[in-house]
Amino acid sequence: MAAQRTVQGEAPSIIVPIRRVEGSQSSRADDLLAVEEALEIRLGQRSLSITMRTPGNDLELAAGFLFSEGIIRGRADIRSLGRPSDGSPDIVMIELVGRERQSSLQTERNFLMTSACGVCGKASLSDLQVNSCPALPRDDIQIEPATMHGLPDQLRRAQSVFDSTGGLHAAARFSLQGELQSVREDVGRHNAVDKLVGAALLDHCLPLARSILLVSGRASFELVQKALMAGIPIMAAVGAPSSLAVATADRAGMTLIGFLRNSRFNVYTGSQRIRGLEPSR
Amino acid sequence: MAAQRTVQGEAPSIIVPIRRVEGSQSSRADDLLAVEEALEIRLGQRSLSITMRTPGNDLELAAGFLFSEGIIRGRADIRSLGRPSDGSPDIVMIELVGRERQSSLQTERNFLMTSACGVCGKASLSDLQVNSCPALPRDDIQIEPATMHGLPDQLRRAQSVFDSTGGLHAAARFSLQGELQSVREDVGRHNAVDKLVGAALLDHCLPLARSILLVSGRASFELVQKALMAGIPIMAAVGAPSSLAVATADRAGMTLIGFLRNSRFNVYTGSQRIRGLEPSR
Repeated sequence: MAAQRTVQGEAPSIIVPIRRVEGSQSSRADDLLAVEEALEIRLGQRSLSITMRTPGNDLELAAGFLFSEGIIRGRADIRSLGRPSDGSPDIVMIELVGRERQSSLQTERNFLMTSACGVCGKASLSDLQVNSCPALPRDDIQIEPATMHGLPDQLRRAQSVFDSTGGLHAAARFSLQGELQSVREDVGRHNAVDKLVGAALLDHCLPLARSILLVSGRASFELVQKALMAGIPIMAAVGAPSSLAVATADRAGMTLIGFLRNSRFNVYTGSQRIRGLEPSR
Repeated sequence: MAAQRTVQGEAPSIIVPIRRVEGSQSSRADDLLAVEEALEIRLGQRSLSITMRTPGNDLELAAGFLFSEGIIRGRADIRSLGRPSDGSPDIVMIELVGRERQSSLQTERNFLMTSACGVCGKASLSDLQVNSCPALPRDDIQIEPATMHGLPDQLRRAQSVFDSTGGLHAAARFSLQGELQSVREDVGRHNAVDKLVGAALLDHCLPLARSILLVSGRASFELVQKALMAGIPIMAAVGAPSSLAVATADRAGMTLIGFLRNSRFNVYTGSQRIRGLEPSR
């Protein structure tokens, strides 16, 4: 396979020669692929995790992952974050503040991130329940349905690669007025959210208590968990939510919306934050 | 959230009350969700892995996971496979033949499966390269394009839940003549493939050297890796492949097809197995 790398924004793609078949006809063509490569996250000297990710925003990805997993509680817990001295593009090195804490983590857990993670580091069902998601604080947020309807088009316009490769998931953060604040893309949907949350963490913007999160695919448990860790009160997915995503959002007081497209959506939990759906009506 | 569980075939779904919004109008409705629940896989007395999966075919899932990860090479390596004595539906217990082998595995690796795994158990980039995918043996397989065009409709017809919840991935195995042989569904796309491969393993059908694999979503590295471990020569995805999926298929001699829909598809690697695309033409 002869491949030529091209970089579009921060999410790289490559061009490969393919054979295109339509009915019984075939032709030679070039196709654009989303890049998927392994990233190793090292805590001190130890390899903590491997993830298959789309290169770009790797430091954000590492920071967001550590935050989502409860290893760091904010930027102040990070002593240093960067590449190894040989400049390897597929390794991120992290040092935490507090030598004791870091060394206990190094021996305690071995994380393995994958394209749709979220239960990383939990070795048994009881661990999973202990590390349950935090409940959101009460708020008086109210969103117009029209604001929600406008989000998917903004996401599509902002995506740098999705339309050309069809291979990337996206996560976007909007203000309560529906203004796009941040977009991240990745072959792994949970990486896209980790990048988004990691960027907010590095910018000292956490918790995201006045933000709406939109994901391009389905809403699984792990995505809801990551959004809750970041304090996001409203999460919407273009696709379907799973049963555990709905149960987790319900327990934590999050508004979870699915099938957001074509001026329609379903509200699964937290309908009081959507104007016109107040329970008291 | 009041939820009522219903079981359709082997992939369960639940009904939940929702608010449906269309434009500025809203109504109350019921919606069907794909079930996502944690499954713990225990090797001997030790918890090996947690995965978020759709209940059903759990023993196949566990067997397929162990096979894909290279822990077992066939059914003969499994001494026992079943539920714990308390009958817990969210735990699968496995005992391997060879006590020494099992105890070394128990201390060596801690697996963490997630909704789109495939790099489980690899703690560093070097591990990942060591555990690289096997090359396929040479074959003289030739498939008509029309055979490929017919697969997505068969998959859709066979899916028991996908159409009603929109939340499940599916993996299907076909003969070289395009006859459907097996379908499995899950909220996690890699789980659907593990269930499919695990079923073949438990039925003594591995390697699947005369099969076509079709997946409902995109083709990532880990899905190609799992297909290669099972000896599948042709893999097709309804969506896009990633760069690493294409590179891995290319190196192993697999035929990888993407965007298989509406009587069209792209051949990324191994075009000699599609009639009319022979390199010598």
